[in-house]
Amino acid sequence: MSTQENTPQENTPGTEPVFNRIALIGAGLIGSSLAWASRKKGLARHVAVTSRSAATRQRIAELGFADSLHEDIKGAVTDADLVIVCTPVGACGAAAEAMAPYLKPGAIVTDVGSVKQAVVRDMGPHIPEGVHFIPGHPIAGTEHSGPDAGFAELFEGRWCILTPLPGDDPAATAKLRRFWEGAGSMIEEMDAEHHDKVLAITSHLPHLIAYTIVGTAVGLEESTKNEVIKFSASGFRDFTRIAASDPVMWRDIFLNNREAVLEMLQRFSEDITHLQRAIRWGEADTLEQMFTRTRAIRRGIIEAKQA
Amino acid sequence: MSTQENTPQENTPGTEPVFNRIALIGAGLIGSSLAWASRKKGLARHVAVTSRSAATRQRIAELGFADSLHEDIKGAVTDADLVIVCTPVGACGAAAEAMAPYLKPGAIVTDVGSVKQAVVRDMGPHIPEGVHFIPGHPIAGTEHSGPDAGFAELFEGRWCILTPLPGDDPAATAKLRRFWEGAGSMIEEMDAEHHDKVLAITSHLPHLIAYTIVGTAVGLEESTKNEVIKFSASGFRDFTRIAASDPVMWRDIFLNNREAVLEMLQRFSEDITHLQRAIRWGEADTLEQMFTRTRAIRRGIIEAKQA
Repeated sequence: MSTQENTPQENTPGTEPVFNRIALIGAGLIGSSLAWASRKKGLARHVAVTSRSAATRQRIAELGFADSLHEDIKGAVTDADLVIVCTPVGACGAAAEAMAPYLKPGAIVTDVGSVKQAVVRDMGPHIPEGVHFIPGHPIAGTEHSGPDAGFAELFEGRWCILTPLPGDDPAATAKLRRFWEGAGSMIEEMDAEHHDKVLAITSHLPHLIAYTIVGTAVGLEESTKNEVIKFSASGFRDFTRIAASDPVMWRDIFLNNREAVLEMLQRFSEDITHLQRAIRWGEADTLEQMFTRTRAIRRGIIEAKQA
Repeated sequence: MSTQENTPQENTPGTEPVFNRIALIGAGLIGSSLAWASRKKGLARHVAVTSRSAATRQRIAELGFADSLHEDIKGAVTDADLVIVCTPVGACGAAAEAMAPYLKPGAIVTDVGSVKQAVVRDMGPHIPEGVHFIPGHPIAGTEHSGPDAGFAELFEGRWCILTPLPGDDPAATAKLRRFWEGAGSMIEEMDAEHHDKVLAITSHLPHLIAYTIVGTAVGLEESTKNEVIKFSASGFRDFTRIAASDPVMWRDIFLNNREAVLEMLQRFSEDITHLQRAIRWGEADTLEQMFTRTRAIRRGIIEAKQA
């Protein structure tokens, strides 16, 4: 085991931290951003960070966003009031199992995964009695990953969805809400099944499509491929940004939200086949009507200030 | 016929305009941006603009980017050294037919359409002997349309593809290049067929997909639809921006680049079915490998400074 202690951080004067000690399991884009936000906004007195890779720990020490750095989960979660699992969703279950014996009674365990039913399924059984398990998902990110990608403002003005389990203590949820609000987020609560369905269409399917079309371009002959890069400003560029997202994270999302993604993909396939047929048969009205009604959604997003 | 003359513009002191009089047929996003660029960068002594709608002409007069405003094509193209057709591609043929009797010998006729073979097919037969027809396509745009959307800087640092016909006068192409370079563009020449294939994958298919997925979301039940807007920041938002583009322009593009779009769409459909199967069967390695190789394309775009 390897543990390093840094000098204590300065909290924002006059504000009381929401938690005494928080533990971040994993320090990629989300974990490192949470560490920066916690330190800069004074949300916790101590930010413990765990990473299994010595090279990553070295880099985190250089970046300086952890009050203590731990090779194993035990060192990070011992005495923590809030534990946030920031790994790809496929690793959540093993993390919960590893931390279970060391969790303090009354502690809150949450996560940041883009899938919630699978996280409840994989983490839930390992969480001991007397520990509050409140799955969460900040709708925030960039196409960059790793501890260097984090920044304190990532969550500002962004939604964070919490999916508290039936019968959980409302006081614990309220405390977790205060933490995310302190990081700048707006909070929404819903059940895990509904979350997974909404995210399947707003996030998972767009990523799958972006990965696919960029892959389709990769498969073209060399001369065309070079020109795809050259002339990417004509629409393709937006897809490449999405398709540059972390591969392991996204592999786990698709494997763990299979039913909802496959349902949305089926609807999408029907719709694109409908347009394909309209193009083949030269049905101008079908195309124009379709392209007109999608403008309303953009207006809705601009009005909702998410653009 | 209605023609309005404005006071002559001031050209940039010390630079010689590339053309004496240019005529813009249509003043949407591209036409109005070309007018602004021509005036601000001193590319022409006189910018004649035609619009069939009285309301649009009124708006153009208020915006002040035309030296003269014309209801019919005749008034605009008479004595013009460069005529740029800035209509949806489906209207290019009729525009060429209408202007043909009034074109000055030695004049250059070009367009800005996102499809080039269909423009050659529809406009070519109407262009008289002694007039240079050089199809063109600036890879520039926004999701906004109409004369209010234009701005002089739209073409700066963007590619403009020219597709000169075999046997055309290189001096005319060189002059048109100088005009686009003056607007800030980088120029590439290729044949029309190759252009249509490259644009099918970099532009037309991304737009078709974006329109489709936004349409798929519109088709969901009301409660989910509202949350799609709320949580759009998770990937979907980029698609809605693309899917807010001008419906008539895009209808015409798909109808006029049918073969190339259907070919690219077929490749895309095979690729997404391959990923769909990998998700259904839980093939983690297939997904991770696919998501890893698409990152290289993004790096290529960043290196090519098109991001």
